Amino acid sequence: MAATVPVINRLAGLRVQTGAWRTAGERIGLVPTMGALHEGHLSLVRLARQTCRRVVVSIFVNPAQFAPNEDFTRYPRDEAGDFAKLARVACDLVWSPLAAEMYPDGFATRIVPAGAAAGLESDFRPQFFGGVATVCCKLFTQVGPDVAVFGEKDYQQLCVVRQMVRDLDLPLDIIAGPTAREADGLAMSSRNAYLTPDQRRVAPTIYRAIDAAAADIRGGQPPARATEAARQALREAGFDPIDYVEVRDAQTLAPADSGTQRPRRVLAAAWLGKTRLIDNVAV
Amino acid sequence: MAATVPVINRLAGLRVQTGAWRTAGERIGLVPTMGALHEGHLSLVRLARQTCRRVVVSIFVNPAQFAPNEDFTRYPRDEAGDFAKLARVACDLVWSPLAAEMYPDGFATRIVPAGAAAGLESDFRPQFFGGVATVCCKLFTQVGPDVAVFGEKDYQQLCVVRQMVRDLDLPLDIIAGPTAREADGLAMSSRNAYLTPDQRRVAPTIYRAIDAAAADIRGGQPPARATEAARQALREAGFDPIDYVEVRDAQTLAPADSGTQRPRRVLAAAWLGKTRLIDNVAV
Repeated sequence: MAATVPVINRLAGLRVQTGAWRTAGERIGLVPTMGALHEGHLSLVRLARQTCRRVVVSIFVNPAQFAPNEDFTRYPRDEAGDFAKLARVACDLVWSPLAAEMYPDGFATRIVPAGAAAGLESDFRPQFFGGVATVCCKLFTQVGPDVAVFGEKDYQQLCVVRQMVRDLDLPLDIIAGPTAREADGLAMSSRNAYLTPDQRRVAPTIYRAIDAAAADIRGGQPPARATEAARQALREAGFDPIDYVEVRDAQTLAPADSGTQRPRRVLAAAWLGKTRLIDNVAV
Repeated sequence: MAATVPVINRLAGLRVQTGAWRTAGERIGLVPTMGALHEGHLSLVRLARQTCRRVVVSIFVNPAQFAPNEDFTRYPRDEAGDFAKLARVACDLVWSPLAAEMYPDGFATRIVPAGAAAGLESDFRPQFFGGVATVCCKLFTQVGPDVAVFGEKDYQQLCVVRQMVRDLDLPLDIIAGPTAREADGLAMSSRNAYLTPDQRRVAPTIYRAIDAAAADIRGGQPPARATEAARQALREAGFDPIDYVEVRDAQTLAPADSGTQRPRRVLAAAWLGKTRLIDNVAV
């Protein structure tokens, strides 16, 4: 008989459970997800478990972070599969809020991040980080975790959430988990399910291209030349359009000087057919 | 020898104190202020005390809610007087954060309220409620109160903060205290200190005008006629310009239908010389 994981979808019930854990002095970790869970998400649950007695996984496909022309309605959903996977990684609770409870009639408060949110994804998805910041703030105040865990796969999101937590003095720590990759290097993503078999074979090019760029920059090549080579590799593999391949300060995401001694990151976004892939690596 | 009240101005120290109170199971009330305290503020401290074992008063003149042309630099400041008044009303702690700790270099997250923030003050102070919402969210996450108390004097602010607390699921209750008034009806306000003796004699007209409008509306007069009479009374008393005199839904602040059965509020803002006065009353 398979283990099951308790699922709560009303805020009052969530607060009773997390309140009991807090009263008992148990540390709570939160892993925010949009479901369609893969090994990347599960690795974040295990990471939360390392420092927290209790781990909550939220599953909420957040309409506020999708533009009208984006893939909200076709975003992969697999509730039964998600619950089964979570039962096997010792998740204590799934927080699966109703959309009407997250955004009730009259909802009228947005969090608008600048700083780390400037450029990159925001140039192509202008409302995205406002939606992400608002829902993450809500998830944090709903669950009240000591720690929330985000994957480095969505690196700019990680930086924006860290910035929000610091700016709004939210009483939790943000921990980053490394990007989980397929054997051929492709970053795991729920959106990989959109790829055709031919596209799937080509998809790892994005990782190989930015990984090569990072190595070239470490080897002394000017960042502009390294990123242009990456764009060229993506073009040749059939990516079109290439939204960006950029080198940024790894903490602030400000454009990085070529002479800087601070850690840098290479970030890229590009399309294969109707699927947009993003990836990033440390320089 | 006068009693004194402990003053903390670093977040780490604040969290040690409020954490100890929470661990002891003591309810915490917060009264956010910009200092220059008067009887109105003190009445909010007493109100917090009714349901909270511990009362924190924050004093922070928030630059983010002043436009460049507004009175941030000349806003009244009287730290010694404030501390003396608070020592007499059994305040447990003054939270007086450093500006550099509230808005450190790289601060880049704003809360943008719509809904209750639309119109009225926002027509004249477009950045105001963004600044208010952001600093109140920070004060709430810093102090972690069970209850925060706001005066009805700043009625739209009260509604915007309530809306933010609900929208962002902040785990506290907002309690409203009635407007404290001078013997002649003038709403107490730190900005009354700007008035010349002549202006001070005329100032209560704003309260008398909106109170008469509310009575006329209760008596069946159309709101548009009642508010026009109030504007006329203000003009005759020398208020210029009159920013607004409006009737709104008391909860949502949406424009109120004349046939509505819902509670309504009359709100006004008008200038006497260089001083802007606001006031409001229930219909």
